[in-house]
Order: sequence, then C-alpha cells, then structure tokens
Amino acid sequence: MSSQAFGERLRQTVASTSPLCVGLDPSPALLSQWGLEDTPGAIARMGAILLDALDGVVGVLKPQVAFFERHGSTGIAVLEEFIGNARSRGFLVIADAKRGDIDSTMAAYGDAWLRPESPLCADALTVTAYLGFGAMEQVVAQALENEKGLFLVVASSNPEGRTLQQATTDTGESLEAMLLRDLAKRNARERQERGIAVGSLGAVVGATRSVKELALTTLQGPYLVPGVGAQGATPSDVGKLFQGCYPGSVVVNASRSILAAGPKGSALRKAAGELGDELRSALG
Amino acid sequence: MSSQAFGERLRQTVASTSPLCVGLDPSPALLSQWGLEDTPGAIARMGAILLDALDGVVGVLKPQVAFFERHGSTGIAVLEEFIGNARSRGFLVIADAKRGDIDSTMAAYGDAWLRPESPLCADALTVTAYLGFGAMEQVVAQALENEKGLFLVVASSNPEGRTLQQATTDTGESLEAMLLRDLAKRNARERQERGIAVGSLGAVVGATRSVKELALTTLQGPYLVPGVGAQGATPSDVGKLFQGCYPGSVVVNASRSILAAGPKGSALRKAAGELGDELRSALG
Repeated sequence: MSSQAFGERLRQTVASTSPLCVGLDPSPALLSQWGLEDTPGAIARMGAILLDALDGVVGVLKPQVAFFERHGSTGIAVLEEFIGNARSRGFLVIADAKRGDIDSTMAAYGDAWLRPESPLCADALTVTAYLGFGAMEQVVAQALENEKGLFLVVASSNPEGRTLQQATTDTGESLEAMLLRDLAKRNARERQERGIAVGSLGAVVGATRSVKELALTTLQGPYLVPGVGAQGATPSDVGKLFQGCYPGSVVVNASRSILAAGPKGSALRKAAGELGDELRSALG
Repeated sequence: MSSQAFGERLRQTVASTSPLCVGLDPSPALLSQWGLEDTPGAIARMGAILLDALDGVVGVLKPQVAFFERHGSTGIAVLEEFIGNARSRGFLVIADAKRGDIDSTMAAYGDAWLRPESPLCADALTVTAYLGFGAMEQVVAQALENEKGLFLVVASSNPEGRTLQQATTDTGESLEAMLLRDLAKRNARERQERGIAVGSLGAVVGATRSVKELALTTLQGPYLVPGVGAQGATPSDVGKLFQGCYPGSVVVNASRSILAAGPKGSALRKAAGELGDELRSALG
C-alpha cells in the first residue's frame, strides 16, 4: 500500500493533522460511561463512533490490545475489524500490545502485528525488552522490511517503573539510556541506507520524565508519549521535554481524557481538536 | 473448580507426574516438520495430538501465545479450545504470553487469562515487569483471588537479556535479585494468610543461569525453567541450580526437544516420559 518508511509516514500524518494520538482503551468503566455494556459488540460500536468522530482531525490511533483480549478471540476479531477500518480510512494505527519475548517468539509477534497478510496487521507495534534489545533483531528486521514501526518502552510514565528503568549497567549507564542508544544506532543505519530524516524505531517516553534523564534528540526516530491528561503532564511539559527533536516525530497519546467526552461524536471531535491544537503549538 | 492455591496444585501435579512442562510452540518450522500446513486448523490438530499423547505422563503444558496470535482471532480461538480441552483433561496450563504493562492494563490482561469466565482462562500466566513490579498489584490480587499463578520473568535463559537483568539499582542490588525479592515478599504474605508451604507467585529463571547469581531458595514459590534441551542446559544443571528449593515447586519447560519427536503419539509420549524421569531424578 505505502512505499514509505514508517518514520516518514508518521511525520506526514502529524504534519497534516496534529501530534495527537488517541488511545482506545475500552475498559468496563469507559464502556459504562458511554452507556454501553461490556461486550465485544459494544466495543466495536465504540470503535466505529471514534473513527467517524476523529476522521480528518486526528491521524494516529492506538488501540490498547489488553482491553480487546479480555474478550478472547471474539474481542480480537473486533480489534482486527477496528484496525482494518481505521487503516482503510487513512489513520495510522499503533497496536499497543507491549509484546516482549526471546527472538524467535518476537518474530511470531512480528508476524501477527506487522505482516501485511495478517488480520491484525497495524502500522506499528509497542514492545518491551526485559529479555534484551538483542532479542528484537528479527522483529526489527520484519518492521523495516514491511515499512512498519516499533515503539520500545524506554522510560514509562508510571512511577513504579522508575527504579528498574534507571538501574545502571556495569558501564554506569541507565537502562533507559542504553535502550535509547540501541534504538538510535539502528535508526542511524536505516536513515543512511534509505536516505531519510527519521528512522522507524521509536521509543515510548513518558511526558512525566525530565530532560536531564535522557538525551532525547539523539534518537532520530519517533516518540510515543503517554502521561498527558489523566497522568498529570501538560502539553507545555511535552514541548520542553522534546525540544530539538525532529518536527513531526513526536506523537502524544491521550486516551481517557479524550474518550471521556464521548459518546457524542461532536464532543469527541472537539476534545481531540483542542488538545491537538495545544500540542501543535507546544511542540512547535 | 479447584479450591486450592496454584502453588499447591502445581506441587501435587508435579508429584503425580514429573517436573516436566511441555511447551507448545506451533512455529511454521515445527508444523512443517509434522507434515502440517501453517493454518489454525493444523495447529488445532497438533494440540489435539499432544493432549492424547501426553495424558497421564505430563502434568503441565505451556502454549506459547505468540504462535497462535500469528493467525489473529482464528488462532486465538484455537488457543481457547486447546486451553479448555487441556484443563478439562486435568492438565495445568501456563499461558506463555509475557504480558507486561501499567497497572490498569495488567488488570485487563488478568481478566483475559486468569478470570474463570474468560474463554482464555488458564491456570497461570507469564508476565514481564519492565514497567515495574509495583504495576503488578492488581494482577497479583486477581491471580490469588482466582487461585491462579503468575510467572514473572526474572532471569531469562537467552544471553541477550543478561546486561539488562543484571543492571543494579542504587542500593547495588541486581534487577533480577530485586524482582525475586519482590515475589518472595508477596509469597510470604500468601503463605502466612493461607497456611500453605509454597506461594502462587512464580519466577522464570533460565537453566543456563548460575546459583551464585540468585538466592533461589528464598522465593518459596514456583519456578518455571526454560533453557533445557534446545538451549543447551541439562537436567543435572537444573538439579544443581534449584537445590534446596521446595520439592515439586520447580517445573522445567521443554518445547522443541519434545515436539520434534512428533507427530507420532507414542514417540511424543516416550520423549516426554524419558525427560520427565531424568528431571525427577535430577530434582530429587
């Protein structure tokens, strides 16, 4: 379909809409707030309303896989349909699955989420690396070959992850700095090989983090940023944190704070438009 | 169905069979080796053959979710059926999904894999904690309430994970030691509250690790041990590594080395019986 690396497609999408990524987390609480039951059919309904409401105003969507997986294969079938519909309407879809395993197993997850023939095929996948960045080799190759993206959790927005992510290796480097460097190295190779400005390997970095902790401009790849809204960070925090990063390479996720405006389409659209505008100004 | 904590059920299962856990990793290579196509139907067939072959000789099965997820919702439906059939025949099923996210999302994964009403309900789930053990609070509570188990990846068998897992916090403790201590603390509470010998919160520790790296006897909970067979460790390595751990609390996974004996049921049964015997002697 596309013939462009993920990092490039993301930049163009952000340029034509805004840096906002809307997360779809169909939790029992949110479904009930929308007056819906907690069923696969109701989740499909929520997804359809979201696509209609956000078409043209938001470019990136991030379904949280766990909330579909709760309903087993029927929930996953709803997710397949949501991803397919969203992509055919021109949205970029990041499957938020945080998959993380050894190399051959990661390749199977790559087959699930990044292979064009797969019913779950998205534009990018979130991953974690407690089993090492070296175990990502095959899934990285799959992503680049299929012009897809990966977002590795580097520095999460929740406080419980801090001790682990800031533990240091025997060279004195924090794990989050090490993973960022691993990604940057691989992006440098892709950028050189393809002659592009921004690589396709992204990092998840919480908006609640401070710029002193990480050399964020070195990634030369996309950032997926949780922590704005429900978790307390502001667009202005994000602007300061990612100052100097390549324009259009930063996407900021908001889930609950946008979806709480539903189920009315016009209210969802307004909430997303306003936050998108704020983020566009803040990120320059 | 049961009215026993997972750790206790696991001990009884190991006592009546062996410490062997057979992993079902239906990769394209394995399916082809069995003369099967890479389709959901063929994976269902492989699972059914495995259940018939291992009934009575193996007590614990570990489907690797990634290889089902490759086929989207149809693959997940095959997994539901496999888990359901296995459990109704008396196998304990560990869903090897390595899920890991923030607290509310982990609770959704808990709903998927540990809630008795879920179509994917297993006996235990593997999880990872790059986002912090503190983010596991809800899923731990769900596991204990439903008499299920969790296996947190502490020290993996693959070499790529070593640098990360042995990074140190500001108290000088390695991450793997810290996570083992977090699990042990929670197991101590469960053991005291229920008056049981072994808690339900387990650790994944590779058979390729050395006893100097981790105080394994402190967990007082189950271990899931990869790395025997295809990855080079022997039953005798496992025996040395887990010396002094509670009898029946250690289950050793073998996937490729057993499944390569298929598709003939008698050969699968023989391979599993022999490795089970070796592990039983080695673990005492």
